[in-house]
Amino acid sequence: MGNVNGMSPAEAAAKAKEASYVLAAFPGSQRDDALQAIAAALTEHKAAIFAANEQDLSEGQGLPAPILGRLKFDDHKLDSCLAGIRDLIAMEDPVGKVVFRRRLAQQQADAGIDGDLILEKVTCPIGVIGVIFESRPDALVQILALCLKSGNAVLLKGGSEARHTNRALFDVIHEAGTAAGLPDAFATLVEDRAAITELLACDDSIDLIIPRGSNAFVRYIMDNSRIPVMGHADGICHIYVDQDADIDKAIDVILDAKTQYVAACNAVETLLVHEAIAPVLMPALEKASLEANAANNGHPVTLIEAADESDFKEYLDYKLTTRIVSGVEEAIAHINRYGSHHTDAILTENEETADLFMTRVDSAGVYHNCSTRFADGYRYGFGAEVGISTGKLHARGPVGLDGLLTCKYKLHGHGDTVGGFGDGKRSFDFKDL
Amino acid sequence: MGNVNGMSPAEAAAKAKEASYVLAAFPGSQRDDALQAIAAALTEHKAAIFAANEQDLSEGQGLPAPILGRLKFDDHKLDSCLAGIRDLIAMEDPVGKVVFRRRLAQQQADAGIDGDLILEKVTCPIGVIGVIFESRPDALVQILALCLKSGNAVLLKGGSEARHTNRALFDVIHEAGTAAGLPDAFATLVEDRAAITELLACDDSIDLIIPRGSNAFVRYIMDNSRIPVMGHADGICHIYVDQDADIDKAIDVILDAKTQYVAACNAVETLLVHEAIAPVLMPALEKASLEANAANNGHPVTLIEAADESDFKEYLDYKLTTRIVSGVEEAIAHINRYGSHHTDAILTENEETADLFMTRVDSAGVYHNCSTRFADGYRYGFGAEVGISTGKLHARGPVGLDGLLTCKYKLHGHGDTVGGFGDGKRSFDFKDL
Repeated sequence: MGNVNGMSPAEAAAKAKEASYVLAAFPGSQRDDALQAIAAALTEHKAAIFAANEQDLSEGQGLPAPILGRLKFDDHKLDSCLAGIRDLIAMEDPVGKVVFRRRLAQQQADAGIDGDLILEKVTCPIGVIGVIFESRPDALVQILALCLKSGNAVLLKGGSEARHTNRALFDVIHEAGTAAGLPDAFATLVEDRAAITELLACDDSIDLIIPRGSNAFVRYIMDNSRIPVMGHADGICHIYVDQDADIDKAIDVILDAKTQYVAACNAVETLLVHEAIAPVLMPALEKASLEANAANNGHPVTLIEAADESDFKEYLDYKLTTRIVSGVEEAIAHINRYGSHHTDAILTENEETADLFMTRVDSAGVYHNCSTRFADGYRYGFGAEVGISTGKLHARGPVGLDGLLTCKYKLHGHGDTVGGFGDGKRSFDFKDL
Repeated sequence: MGNVNGMSPAEAAAKAKEASYVLAAFPGSQRDDALQAIAAALTEHKAAIFAANEQDLSEGQGLPAPILGRLKFDDHKLDSCLAGIRDLIAMEDPVGKVVFRRRLAQQQADAGIDGDLILEKVTCPIGVIGVIFESRPDALVQILALCLKSGNAVLLKGGSEARHTNRALFDVIHEAGTAAGLPDAFATLVEDRAAITELLACDDSIDLIIPRGSNAFVRYIMDNSRIPVMGHADGICHIYVDQDADIDKAIDVILDAKTQYVAACNAVETLLVHEAIAPVLMPALEKASLEANAANNGHPVTLIEAADESDFKEYLDYKLTTRIVSGVEEAIAHINRYGSHHTDAILTENEETADLFMTRVDSAGVYHNCSTRFADGYRYGFGAEVGISTGKLHARGPVGLDGLLTCKYKLHGHGDTVGGFGDGKRSFDFKDL
């Protein structure tokens, strides 16, 4: 039996559900006030938070340097969290926006219907979001703030390497939030890893899971829960270099997509090259990738000629599978078959070929003459990012605050019955207002 | 091993997937031409279709009259199918619509970037839709036309009672569609029930399942597939009669919601009554429901006082559970706990109470002073209806053609790299165009 703050996971999820109903009715100004109070509390208690982080860092001695870098929570990270909260406060309330307003039928006074029948589609929070995130304590602040801005209750499970920092951050935020009038379960910190399996069964209470961990972990969650999952497992992104590509641009874009941040899901993993341009491109690319060595902290890009399907994978490293193809049709077929429907680019000066590629490649992002690394909520201008979805339903690609919202239909009547419509009776008029 | 037109279900699904990539690139005018050809072929071959239907009807002797009524496919049903196709042809192409267009960054000629970096969010088909529908042959025509208009490939499994009609309709449509240039697998008829289990495992090929069968069947599919499901299992709709309700309106609306079509998912199943109005409302309602007897083909409404949780269920019959509550808060809590998040109404002349109810009740439809029976794509003015979703992601409530579409991001560059942005380099400007 997992344990969440002394409750069973199912109890904790049910409490979050109840809190979500209260939050859904909170005015936006009150949610913004709570965000303000949280920002102030984080600043006030930063010494205690940094001390907790020192403990995590000292217990984490021996972890790889990049993980320690993500684990560190200092003035710089705090400032960026506070800036994120300020940005959210400045944004207009995403809840309760009228998507459309339609008169379904006019009033009919002689039948006792003394007003029009009005349908509204209105944005509202999804409810309870479960987020499982990596070892960056700043992710806890960011996610919690996004959920609060959008009126959702949240269950948070962070990486165990950051447990002291997460607890310190959570306690400060929770105290400030409840003091500002939020219900106790507006946010819940899950520390017991054993609780996850039980939470995955709480499809009555949890509306959406956003996993931001390793691929294997994301797939485990997708396979073991009825709760919808928003995210991505693999990021096998492709670049197809067409025969009409500009070689210099192509080399810049390929090296950027591969090396600008190799651990990202939007880094390119497979390069497809038109057979007509390969004799020119490949030697130039090899030369450039050796020259790029210095820029990549001593990592030349290793080009791996595809031998079989096992090479069409995600490296998250300075490695790139290459395959020669006969043209754009073969490239499209390859990407739709072996890709992960994340982000794929064509490099060509031929607009028609680019159009064909962008229409037929079945991915969240289809790019022409630019790096796959642009696939990111910040670079799309969404501000805060919830994650990147390779699913096609609800949200696809980089997901902003919108991904944490759904809609409901409100119908405003005056005693209207369906039986009151029909031949010789009332009729619908469907006038958008 | 199930069988789909001589193929394994997995092969049939993979063929549908390939066809979906071709369909996604078909211009809207060509999809409309195919719809036109299909309408003409249905008219031309109607005698053969009606003959097949006679066979189903004669084999179905002994089935309940309502089922035989749904099974019948005559001139009247054909005309309504043809009208539906004409409506779809008249609608503008829902594929390739630009949802937004945003300049991420301006060109930078000195860095060799000779054009702006432009992001477009564009609608596109979801891919392959699996639809499992009841014994109405007209549903086959309607669903197939919706999928074609939206550029999706479709796998169709109809009720076995209608198998001759379905086969006749499908053959006519398939021949007309392929003659009009559609790929062979633009639509596939699945006749073997044993194929369903295998199709549910084809999450690589099938993007969405829309089940329109019994509740138990919908739940079976949700539990046995990783493929997203759009639909609803139960429809446990509520009406809460507040202390400030108008009694006459309340009785009209309750009887309409219960008796106008008892087999519908949007019929009311539980009536919650404020304790202050119950002494007046309940006797008046009992009297009115007895009087309504004649209007309901001799079916008076039976009011069943709730004894325990087992009474909070879907009857699909002239029965209505009643429960006295202390006020709107208790009504909201009841609905959120025992409801199916489909459609729930409050009857009150108090706008403030109505607002509270409509904000806090966590359902796809929240209604004020009107019948739950309005929850329907046609009555919302959506034209054709794909189904009603009680899920919160992607589509919620009655779903029109929009529910068969997703979006992709197209990014148009000129050799842009992420490494080209940053301090002293290019910057994002996020200008919506």
